[in-house]
Amino acid sequence: MTMLTMSCVRVCSALTAFRMATRVRSLHSVPGITVAQIDEEVAKLLELKAQLGGDDGKHQFVLKTPKGTRDYNPKQMAIREKVFNTIISCFKRHAAETIDTPVFELKETLTGKYGEDSKLIYDLKDQGGELLSLRYDLTVPFARYLAMNKITNIKRYHIAKVYRRDNPAMTRGRYREFYQCDFDIAGQYDAMIPDAECLKIVHEILSELELGDFCIKVNDRRILDGMFAVCGVPDDKFRTICSTVDKLDKMPWEDVKKEMVNEKGLSEEAANQIGEYVSMQGGMDLAERLLQDPKMSQSKQACAGLSDVKLLFSYLQLFQVTDKVVFDLSLARGLDYYTGVIYEAVLTQAGVAPATNETQNGANAEESVSVGSVAGGGRYDGLVGMFDPKGRKVPCVGVSIGIERIFSIMEQKAEASAEKVRTTEVQVMVVSAQKNLLEERLRLITELWNAGIKAEVMYKKNPKLLSQLQHCEESGIPLVAILGEQELKDGVVKLRVVATREEVDISRADLISEIKKRTSDA
Amino acid sequence: MTMLTMSCVRVCSALTAFRMATRVRSLHSVPGITVAQIDEEVAKLLELKAQLGGDDGKHQFVLKTPKGTRDYNPKQMAIREKVFNTIISCFKRHAAETIDTPVFELKETLTGKYGEDSKLIYDLKDQGGELLSLRYDLTVPFARYLAMNKITNIKRYHIAKVYRRDNPAMTRGRYREFYQCDFDIAGQYDAMIPDAECLKIVHEILSELELGDFCIKVNDRRILDGMFAVCGVPDDKFRTICSTVDKLDKMPWEDVKKEMVNEKGLSEEAANQIGEYVSMQGGMDLAERLLQDPKMSQSKQACAGLSDVKLLFSYLQLFQVTDKVVFDLSLARGLDYYTGVIYEAVLTQAGVAPATNETQNGANAEESVSVGSVAGGGRYDGLVGMFDPKGRKVPCVGVSIGIERIFSIMEQKAEASAEKVRTTEVQVMVVSAQKNLLEERLRLITELWNAGIKAEVMYKKNPKLLSQLQHCEESGIPLVAILGEQELKDGVVKLRVVATREEVDISRADLISEIKKRTSDA
Repeated sequence: MTMLTMSCVRVCSALTAFRMATRVRSLHSVPGITVAQIDEEVAKLLELKAQLGGDDGKHQFVLKTPKGTRDYNPKQMAIREKVFNTIISCFKRHAAETIDTPVFELKETLTGKYGEDSKLIYDLKDQGGELLSLRYDLTVPFARYLAMNKITNIKRYHIAKVYRRDNPAMTRGRYREFYQCDFDIAGQYDAMIPDAECLKIVHEILSELELGDFCIKVNDRRILDGMFAVCGVPDDKFRTICSTVDKLDKMPWEDVKKEMVNEKGLSEEAANQIGEYVSMQGGMDLAERLLQDPKMSQSKQACAGLSDVKLLFSYLQLFQVTDKVVFDLSLARGLDYYTGVIYEAVLTQAGVAPATNETQNGANAEESVSVGSVAGGGRYDGLVGMFDPKGRKVPCVGVSIGIERIFSIMEQKAEASAEKVRTTEVQVMVVSAQKNLLEERLRLITELWNAGIKAEVMYKKNPKLLSQLQHCEESGIPLVAILGEQELKDGVVKLRVVATREEVDISRADLISEIKKRTSDA
Repeated sequence: MTMLTMSCVRVCSALTAFRMATRVRSLHSVPGITVAQIDEEVAKLLELKAQLGGDDGKHQFVLKTPKGTRDYNPKQMAIREKVFNTIISCFKRHAAETIDTPVFELKETLTGKYGEDSKLIYDLKDQGGELLSLRYDLTVPFARYLAMNKITNIKRYHIAKVYRRDNPAMTRGRYREFYQCDFDIAGQYDAMIPDAECLKIVHEILSELELGDFCIKVNDRRILDGMFAVCGVPDDKFRTICSTVDKLDKMPWEDVKKEMVNEKGLSEEAANQIGEYVSMQGGMDLAERLLQDPKMSQSKQACAGLSDVKLLFSYLQLFQVTDKVVFDLSLARGLDYYTGVIYEAVLTQAGVAPATNETQNGANAEESVSVGSVAGGGRYDGLVGMFDPKGRKVPCVGVSIGIERIFSIMEQKAEASAEKVRTTEVQVMVVSAQKNLLEERLRLITELWNAGIKAEVMYKKNPKLLSQLQHCEESGIPLVAILGEQELKDGVVKLRVVATREEVDISRADLISEIKKRTSDA
């Protein structure tokens, strides 16, 4: 239906263009095109248009959101709010402040930060004035903010939408407009303490969201570079070999090796040596072993990285999160700006449904959500310096939670669950049992609102009692305050509990405290 | 400083262009420009560049946010969060759901909705694909959402940023990127009940934010049109005369009249008649009087509007908000899409400081914030139909809170106040009194985090006790958990209350409950 409308609009535009071309020709005699040719084209287009549907003279709007974007309906928003609350609580528990930056930046602020991905940046039209682009992530605006305000230490979170002109596969959870939830620590501190806190935060958030089992992979840019060096990768091939290694989570080693040797021209021997290293996974013990490794220990860089990974794990033990953290030499994150520790969290199984009876069907539904990376980050000590006129560096480490994929999993869970997602927080519905009681209903709801109670009333003079009660059932409102002639005479309100249908008369003077008592843990 | 950098960048670009032009000339012999001319221009530019500062070979970033936008620092975010919480609580108390829409829409979705203001819409660059524009308000995306999802009734709020390529005077509180907080009720209901709730909401929010005295002006599009008709304004001049009337809050009547007669060609007599009406202010009584007015009562439209205003006031009485609402015939809001009741809230004095000792200086500071409109809205019964392929109408009424001006007032209040704005919610800082206790600090803070306590620790191996305590004072952290050799031996933690400097030993087992007890109302 929508596709048809769209095609129709396109045909109309094409027609207009041809009509204009015709007029232009009669005036200026455009070379290389004849009136006959145009008429033929117009005839073809008119025929196509006739097939698509008549021209009723009205402009047809294309009723859709832009490609790669979506609206959030109230149910999705309720889920989104729950996820955000969990994440924000965690960030606040870890003493973070928050900042916000504009949705667009000067184009040149983003230039040279994203390598090849720069082609995915949305530019604004030049309407006179500055050249602007939509932000591509929250990290570069953060670095710009630090440099601009000469801030040398801050722990901040930032939750906001970012924009990428990607061609997301139409699977769920990938969009051109999507949220990032970033937590970063900037400042010159003793090694690995802030880095360890970032991992502690990922651990807390993924545990609290109950998305099922997960694993946080850790590596270090310096270990990767050192490994490439000792395996005999030429300096100028570090980046490209690194991006091939990055594919190990999607491709078997044999294919990765083929790409290294056949496409990237690496020697078979170097590839084999890399293959041995990138198959290694472990914890602090692996870092210790590699520090003794005759080849790896030749690289100063690798040793610096390995010592830091060792130190990191000692802090992770104190933070009680080593159960989920793995030192994995195959982890190689894409972004150019990382300089030290890098990490990525992946869900290792389809989300486990929480332990309630209602969600027994959950497990099946969740299998259809592709399992993958839900958080990632690392240390980037050079980025702020790129903005500082004097190149002053501010060391930074941070993590970004990939919230859209988490939304998708939570939405599927909610769909599979028997429990209804409430989209309002209404505690009580004010209803009337007879006609002509609108004024009394409005008077009562005013009392409730003024006392801070979340209350709703139907916008009708004489709604039916049944339809008012039905609305409560449908939208999960727990209490009903019923007014009738008798209740008004007696100075009471009939309070009905929707779940049990139990009804009790409460004096007007006690109503507010009674409602508050009954909804105190709602 | 920033201006200088910007000029320098421009000069550099100009130079590059000239250098390229020179090279081009030597290759292809460009007609109409001589090498001598170019050399002369280059010399001039180089001189200008020398005046601006040397070329150090590095690219100079322009460290700024785009024109008309700003970052929010942590202090501003703390204030913003407080304001949002008040507004969202009110919206939720009134049973609203929430939705979200993309920051950009198809260009044609916005076309024909904003009249002259359409020139202020930000377009995205055509990078292949759809033509997109940044949203200009939240009302048109809401109408698009309703039509697209065939929703015929909903009560929703939407808080998000909108974009206007305005040239805001550099006074505080006007930006090109700014928040709107919209509350709208869509659906076919009995007259004036949802409209009255919108005004109740404005009343609640402005009262709770303690911005000082305010007034909500109410009028109706049908009364305005009826008034113009009976005063003898030609049909085709309704819009333009309406926009002149709209200036009455900034200009004296004499100037408004001059504009009507001299610029818009209205007869002196018609202008005088309008002048009589637009000076009228009142309540339900005024609506009753005008229904008897020999001239006004000739217009069916005006009578319909006046009857509705009467009904509206009867509901406002039940909602207990008539103290702030004025029926004002001079109110004429700009947007084309209003069809019935319209309203606007204005602050009638500089914000009154809340009744605390610390804010005695507040009053002065606030006088510098310009008093003006902080909320506005009305009924728009035709907008959704513009998107529906069959033109089906969904009656709507809503209100938009102008949050940026409110932020400005709150920020000035905070600045004038002695009370510090906290930017984190940390309850306790874990500190050590001696060296070599980093591990013990990390072990303790892990216990606290795992128990849900908001806690902070310094990222240093051996921070000084004094600097740890100073940090607590500066950032308003109420409690300090002090670890030393003795405390570790005794199995206790010394808990210090920052405000009183009182210290007490608490056993490790009791620490969490003790902290929770002491910060339960923080």
